[in-house]
Amino acid sequence: MGTSKKFAVILSGCGVFDGSEIHEAVLTMYAIVKNDCTYEIFAPDRPQHHVINHCTRQVTGETRNVLTEAARIARGRIKPLTSFRADEFDGLIFPGGFGAAKNLSDYNDKGYRMTVIQEVADVIQEMASKQKPIGALCIAPVLLARVLGKVEVTIGNDTETASDIEKMGAKHHKTMHGQVIVDNRFRVVTTPCYMLDANIVQIAEGAENVVKEMLKLMV
Amino acid sequence: MGTSKKFAVILSGCGVFDGSEIHEAVLTMYAIVKNDCTYEIFAPDRPQHHVINHCTRQVTGETRNVLTEAARIARGRIKPLTSFRADEFDGLIFPGGFGAAKNLSDYNDKGYRMTVIQEVADVIQEMASKQKPIGALCIAPVLLARVLGKVEVTIGNDTETASDIEKMGAKHHKTMHGQVIVDNRFRVVTTPCYMLDANIVQIAEGAENVVKEMLKLMV
Repeated sequence: MGTSKKFAVILSGCGVFDGSEIHEAVLTMYAIVKNDCTYEIFAPDRPQHHVINHCTRQVTGETRNVLTEAARIARGRIKPLTSFRADEFDGLIFPGGFGAAKNLSDYNDKGYRMTVIQEVADVIQEMASKQKPIGALCIAPVLLARVLGKVEVTIGNDTETASDIEKMGAKHHKTMHGQVIVDNRFRVVTTPCYMLDANIVQIAEGAENVVKEMLKLMV
Repeated sequence: MGTSKKFAVILSGCGVFDGSEIHEAVLTMYAIVKNDCTYEIFAPDRPQHHVINHCTRQVTGETRNVLTEAARIARGRIKPLTSFRADEFDGLIFPGGFGAAKNLSDYNDKGYRMTVIQEVADVIQEMASKQKPIGALCIAPVLLARVLGKVEVTIGNDTETASDIEKMGAKHHKTMHGQVIVDNRFRVVTTPCYMLDANIVQIAEGAENVVKEMLKLMV
């Protein structure tokens, strides 16, 4: 069966409206271990774009750090993204949540004119250059569209986001719950998760399907 | 098959060191839906005991609210615990995390001389009086020991916590990963989860075993 594969999970905070979507993050980690693999968790060490009160959905006056908040999901076992080395991993996964569009990039404000923060662009390019698979859930595929260009991805069926993805030069495929799109050239695997009106079992299925397709690409 | 059972999940914040343990909370919700049941999420609307930086494990100077932070795990779909009505639910579950010992009670500071906050004591007593099952993961069984007294529970194999539980008049049973203790008289189901040095698959197993045993008690 070969040795256990090692994944890097990149978080963007802790909470769907201003950071990583927590269910997607946890169920990605669960899918990795359930498939006899291991993971390490990384996040950029920088201030969050803002803090959202998750009851009222209003911006608060607080300042929080992406790495420090992501450490809640990681139970403290997390490293700054600048310490990531592609040689140490077989695959890289981005769970979703608005953090991908607010802290890892400015997609939330800029749409298809978005910029991906340098350290995230670097890890995507480093993995791609070594032909190692990259997975992305929910809104996170926009990061791959911007950095990789002509990549095939899915964010579900939201027409505005799909249109933005195509404006960045990527190809969008419509999908439903748990479905994945595999780009064999870039070794990119994506699934919509909470970009659809999903329940938590459907999130687990999406995350596991991404992990399983990434494992096939690792050969 | 009868109608779908409905669980109330009680959270205590968002993050193992000062709130709900996130993996336990998410995997409890996952276990409920995977077993064809539904849930609603509640938390007390009150300030957290303190805020811990989950990278450094140091107390920060911040003030956060238990309900507002728990809303991150709940994706905003959460209610104040005072609005809980036992008539609307078939079972009640407490995931673990230090929040159970810092925000739902003062066990972290007081040990077996602990007090459970009134609104949590109320929901436990209300469910018990209606003979509806209560589940508790990790450290949360201390809440049941204090409120119910002569109940049989497990927190794994930590001798100090087990001793505190027995000093409160309850009976502690040693357990390993995924094992559950069922108290048929009180209809209480407990499992150690991260009170042991567990991985995330073992947490999922513990949470699912609790949900399954609770379903058996619901008849």
